[in-house]
Order: sequence, then structure tokens, then C-alpha cells
Amino acid sequence: MGTVYEKTATSPVNIAVIKYWGKRDTNLILPTNSSLSVTLSQDHLHSKTTIRASPDFEKTRLWLNGVEDTDIEKNKRLQNCFRETRRLRKEYEEKLCKDKGADNVIPLSEYNLHICSENNFPTAAGLASSASGFACLAYTLSQLYELPISTTELSKIARQGSGSACRSLFGGFVAWEMGSKDDGSDSQAVQVAPQDHWPELEALICVVSDAKKGTSSTEGMQNTVNTSTLLQHRIEHIVPLRMKSMIKAIHERDYQKFAEITMQDSNQFHAVCLDTSPPIFYLNDVSRAIIRMITEYNSSNPERKLKAAYTFDAGPNAVIYTTSENIPGIINLIAKYFPSNENTSEYFSDPFQLFVGKTIGEQPLPLGFNDQIIPVFPKGSVKQILHTKVGEGPKVVAGEYDGLLNKQGC
Amino acid sequence: MGTVYEKTATSPVNIAVIKYWGKRDTNLILPTNSSLSVTLSQDHLHSKTTIRASPDFEKTRLWLNGVEDTDIEKNKRLQNCFRETRRLRKEYEEKLCKDKGADNVIPLSEYNLHICSENNFPTAAGLASSASGFACLAYTLSQLYELPISTTELSKIARQGSGSACRSLFGGFVAWEMGSKDDGSDSQAVQVAPQDHWPELEALICVVSDAKKGTSSTEGMQNTVNTSTLLQHRIEHIVPLRMKSMIKAIHERDYQKFAEITMQDSNQFHAVCLDTSPPIFYLNDVSRAIIRMITEYNSSNPERKLKAAYTFDAGPNAVIYTTSENIPGIINLIAKYFPSNENTSEYFSDPFQLFVGKTIGEQPLPLGFNDQIIPVFPKGSVKQILHTKVGEGPKVVAGEYDGLLNKQGC
Repeated sequence: MGTVYEKTATSPVNIAVIKYWGKRDTNLILPTNSSLSVTLSQDHLHSKTTIRASPDFEKTRLWLNGVEDTDIEKNKRLQNCFRETRRLRKEYEEKLCKDKGADNVIPLSEYNLHICSENNFPTAAGLASSASGFACLAYTLSQLYELPISTTELSKIARQGSGSACRSLFGGFVAWEMGSKDDGSDSQAVQVAPQDHWPELEALICVVSDAKKGTSSTEGMQNTVNTSTLLQHRIEHIVPLRMKSMIKAIHERDYQKFAEITMQDSNQFHAVCLDTSPPIFYLNDVSRAIIRMITEYNSSNPERKLKAAYTFDAGPNAVIYTTSENIPGIINLIAKYFPSNENTSEYFSDPFQLFVGKTIGEQPLPLGFNDQIIPVFPKGSVKQILHTKVGEGPKVVAGEYDGLLNKQGC
Repeated sequence: MGTVYEKTATSPVNIAVIKYWGKRDTNLILPTNSSLSVTLSQDHLHSKTTIRASPDFEKTRLWLNGVEDTDIEKNKRLQNCFRETRRLRKEYEEKLCKDKGADNVIPLSEYNLHICSENNFPTAAGLASSASGFACLAYTLSQLYELPISTTELSKIARQGSGSACRSLFGGFVAWEMGSKDDGSDSQAVQVAPQDHWPELEALICVVSDAKKGTSSTEGMQNTVNTSTLLQHRIEHIVPLRMKSMIKAIHERDYQKFAEITMQDSNQFHAVCLDTSPPIFYLNDVSRAIIRMITEYNSSNPERKLKAAYTFDAGPNAVIYTTSENIPGIINLIAKYFPSNENTSEYFSDPFQLFVGKTIGEQPLPLGFNDQIIPVFPKGSVKQILHTKVGEGPKVVAGEYDGLLNKQGC
């Protein structure tokens, strides 16, 4: 067996505060509007990918969460990422060859690959696993191939795997600039602010049970593009202003503005889904009750300040962005109205040990909070609460023992 | 006791297919867009109002569903209707006086009134009782006062009680033209087509249980006007086109077009509610499942034709417009997925005797219908199905024994 070249890396999940919904080019994955997201800590949620290249591999193979995908030839999005990174590797090899001579170049661009990728969270939780997954694929390939390109350049490749994957290539606060060129060469991710820019900003993810699998976002967004009579107005007149205001709010750490736009844009995204024919629904009765609860929490506090901001992607899960000091109060609210049907350690994932010696869901409600605003939901309506914060971008995992390929026997 | 003058009349409910949502003048109740509705048969749903005028009444009093409203002085909308009809009566009396002499004129405009009004359906069902109620008040007053005005003129008075009440003054298919004048003199209802224009068109009303009383439409629509960034686009660019297409579809009895616009406009109304800050929700999980069921019913039939059109007002109840031949199949679907928790006679109100000898909810599903599209809901999720059709406008009830005032001891 010849020499084996291998790299392993992890990539984060990102949750948008200005939503991506609609493509102007479905092949290159060019969006109809710019979007902006917060990268979440990889301590909680990440994809991990090991890629091995060898002249001995007869074909390129992919294992996803331990199961081989035998249909990768037909997966255009995967092939886009392979083709683009190989092309860049090839160019790099030619340059190396010229500079240092052919003996000093390993022709990785000609080797087949074995790729193993897994998420440390259930795909079923609906937490945008394709964004972290494709970001991880593109990043790990770029590392294995030692590509001499910027992260923003790399984001254009990840984008062709899954649109929002381009945003998972940076930590902190990330804009996906929609661009205007037909070839997609200006549709890319840029970092708006780094991970440590706003240390007080934290997130709570409420994993909401849902009987029915909703419309896939790939299919749903094009139905919206084709049938909604409101989307075009959002794209042309609303999102550009919101992008500017949101970037300013982040730069100034203006939580009031950040929260206001976050909620407005989540609502508008679901509004254009509803304006689609036939309509697309991602929010269910539990999601809507969480919105009512957060609205009451924001309007009943004595300072009349926004203290929490909800946002929902293409599913019923709520992500609540708030600042550190409000986390215990919000968790208490969630646990009161959406109690656990399991033991607390599974229900609540809290690495920051907020509730030492206290029982969540049994603390008094905030002063002025109308406790009749929503009913107490059946146990298990919220399956899990994850407490997390702003995180860093993809990183190489040191040490070969971290690789996934041998562990899974693939 | 002096002479008593009395009139009793009934008025229908109307369900819009192009929705009214937003006022440009909250005092005169001038809308931000035109709207269009179908008047439903009074056999099922109506308001009934008796008004008595007498020189002996010390003050004007109002009983609503048997309970006196002792705060009518402060009810601006009621006072609008009283003031406008009295003013017209006064003019009429002056004219009569001039033509026939003072002895031949009864000065009804100077008398106080006793008004008794009731709905033959529970207000809690959320079936737009204020529209039929105010239409009935305005109509009964116009009859008692013998006002020499057209129904369209009268509609401007009813409009000042409750916006959509103006549409309940006509039978059949009714447009509320938004008008452009500041004084509201061109914001009025006109009949698009009479009651017997499209005899095949029928309606099924699904009364959906809901734990929480939603935002009132009066409050909700102004929140949308003030905060939605999509509403203005709907008002300026979408509704005017839809009004034209809908009127054409009705004139041509084009059910495909009628159904398409009806569903699109219901969806868009709920979309702008969701685009409001904080968002307004009227659809719940049952409403959304009804939408999915109708969507599947429309897309799975072999002819690929729209056979049913849902529409939802400011609440979770579905109104399904369809044509006669599809009624049994749709009722069967509803009863299968949203079974009754009571006896069938209360669950299903069907004067047309569609199911003689058969059991609803147990007929086979239509060929090609994916029965997994929604789950079977808990019994009672739909409380009642009402089968009704296009109906006539307000009418005077002959015979004094029909009056409500004595019966209720008021």
C-alpha cells in the first residue's frame, strides 16, 4: 500500500439572523439576497470530517455518519466541491512543479479520496447539518490540498455544496454577500466581526418535537421564488437595508437593534413561506407559543427593553439570542412552559453550570410577566435546551488518532 | 304609552376571498385596500335585529344576545351609525314636511330607540359576527326610518360600524371599493354578481377549537399597518390585480381562477400578519393541517384541477369554497382526519341531506390521495362542519311576532 495523506477538521453550525431564502441560480447556488449569521460554538455542535487521499484508492468514497453513500457520482453538489478543489490543487501542483521541480510535488489532485463525515448532533434535530457538513468538506479538502487561497475564496466552493455552508467557514459574525455576477465569483462569505467581538451574546436552542417532516429548504425556497408575490419586494427593498442596520448593530454591540432585526427577519422569512403556493409552514403551535412567550418577556420587563430575540430556520426549533445575564431567566421560562419528559441532564445541556443548587422551571416568573400568555405545554414539547455561544470557524484537529476513517472501519 | 314604531330584519355573514386588512382612517373606517366577499346563506348564519322607536323612551338602549350593553354612549362605532342614519332621517322628515305638511311626518329622528340584536350562531365560533351585526343595525335603521337611499349609500354607514359590515348589505358576490377620498364618500360596497349567479358554488365552514383567543382584528390590522414592511407592497401592487382577476373569475364562473386567488389571498393575509411586530398568528396546527389536506386533495385528483379552496379570516376556522359535486368527498375527508367527539347531528350541519344512508368519514379516500399527508387529529379538533351556500342580503322579517324585544323582556 502506497503513502496515505490524511486531514481531519471540524466545522461549526451557523444560525442566520438575516435569512437566506431563494436562489437566482440553482446550479451555482447564487442567492436572491444577502444574509448574515452567527457562528455557534463547536463545543456543542459541529461536523467532523476526515479525508484521506491515496494512489491506491480505486474510487472516491464517502461515509456519512457511518453509512456509505454509494450514489456520490450523481450528487452534483458534492461533485462541485470535488471539482473546484481539485482544479485549484492541480494549479498549485503545476506552480510547485515549476518552482521546485516535479520530484517535490505529490499529485494529490490525481488521487481518489476516502471521506468520512459525521455530526455530533442528530440530523433529525433539524439543525442545518448540511451547512456545517459542506463547510467541513471544503475546509478539510483545502487543508489536505494545502490550497493557497483565502477563506473567502474557499467560501465560494463551500457555497456550491450548500448555500449557507459558506457562512460556516468563519467564526463570529458572518455575512454572505449575494454578489451580482452570473458566474458567482462575487457571491461569498466575509467576516463581519470575530468570535470574541461580543462576549456577552449567547444562544439557547430549543429542540421542538414535530410529527411531520416539513418541506426541504432546497425545494421550498424555489417554490417561494416562483410563486410568492411578496418575496421580490423583500429581496429588493427590505433585505439590503436590514443587512446594513444589522452589520452596524453588531459593530456597535447594539443588542436592541440586533434583537429587533433578528425577530423581524425571522418573521418575514416565515411570512414569505406562507405566501408561497401551496404555502410552506415551518412553525408549529409550540414554535408560536415560544414566540408569544419571548414577546411577553420583552414587553413586560420594567425597562421595556428587548432582552431576548427568537429566530427560526426551516423547521420548528427556536434559537434564542440573548445576553449572558438573561440566560437563567429564559431557561426558567422555557422549562416552566415546555417541561421535560426526561431527566434534566438530557433535557438541558448547560456547560456553564448556571443552575447549581436550583431547579430549573421552578424559579418565580419575572415581575410583570403575564403567566396566562400561553398554556403549559405537554411534557416533551421541547425535547432539549442547548445553551451555547458565539464560536470560532473550522479548525484542523491535531493528531491522526482523531481521524474518523479507521474508527468506523471505512 | 305613546305609539311604538318597530322593525325587525336579518343580515348575513360574509367571508372574504380578497381580504380586508388595514385602515387608512380608523375613525371613518377607510381601508388600505379593496376587498371582495361571498355572502353566505342566512338559513345557517345570520344576525337579527329589532329596533323600536318611541317618544316615551328616556334613552337609547341596546341588548346584544340578551344582555344589555350599558356603555353605548362611549361606543364610537355605534354612535357613528346612529348619527348618520338620524341625520338622513331628519333630512327626509324635512322633505316630507315640505311636501305633505308637518302633520304627516312622524319625527322618528327625535325618538330614542330600543335595539335588540342577536346572532343565531355562537360569537365564540369566531365567525365575524360584527360584520353581520352592524349590517343588520344599519339595515334595520334604514327600514325603520324609511330612508330613501340605495344599498350602496347605506353601505357607507354600515362601514363606519365595522368595515366588513358594508359587504353584508348585499347578497351574492360583493366588492368593497376602498375609494380614495378623505371623507370616505367613495368607500362603499357594490354587488359584483347576485346570489343566484353561480348556483354550484357552496361552502363548508370548519369550526376549529382554539385554546387561545387571538389578537382582535381591529388591533391586529393597525399593528400590521404600522410595522409590516410587506403590507404596502400587497396594497399597492397585489390586491388591485387580484380584485380585477377575481371579479372576472366570478363573472365567468371560472372556478379554477376563483380557487387559486382565494387561497393565495388567504395565505398572503396570514403572511402579512406574520410579518407584523410582534407577529400575529391566527392559523393553528389544525388550520395548517386542513390546508395540507386541501392541497393534497387538489393535487392528487386525476384531472389535476383545483376542486376546493380554503380561506381563513382572523381565526383558526376554515371556510372551504367548492362546487356541489365535491361536497360529499370533502366532508368525508374532514370527518376522517378531524373526527367528531360528539354525535354526528351536532358535528355536521347538512340541510341538503347528502349522506342519507351513509356514514361520513368512512367512505374511501379519493384515488391517488396520499393518506399520510397529515395525521388523524384528536376527536373534537374540528368541532363542527357547516354546509352552506351563497345567500341573499338583509331582509325585513314580516310580522311583529318576529321582534326580539318583547321575547327577551327588554
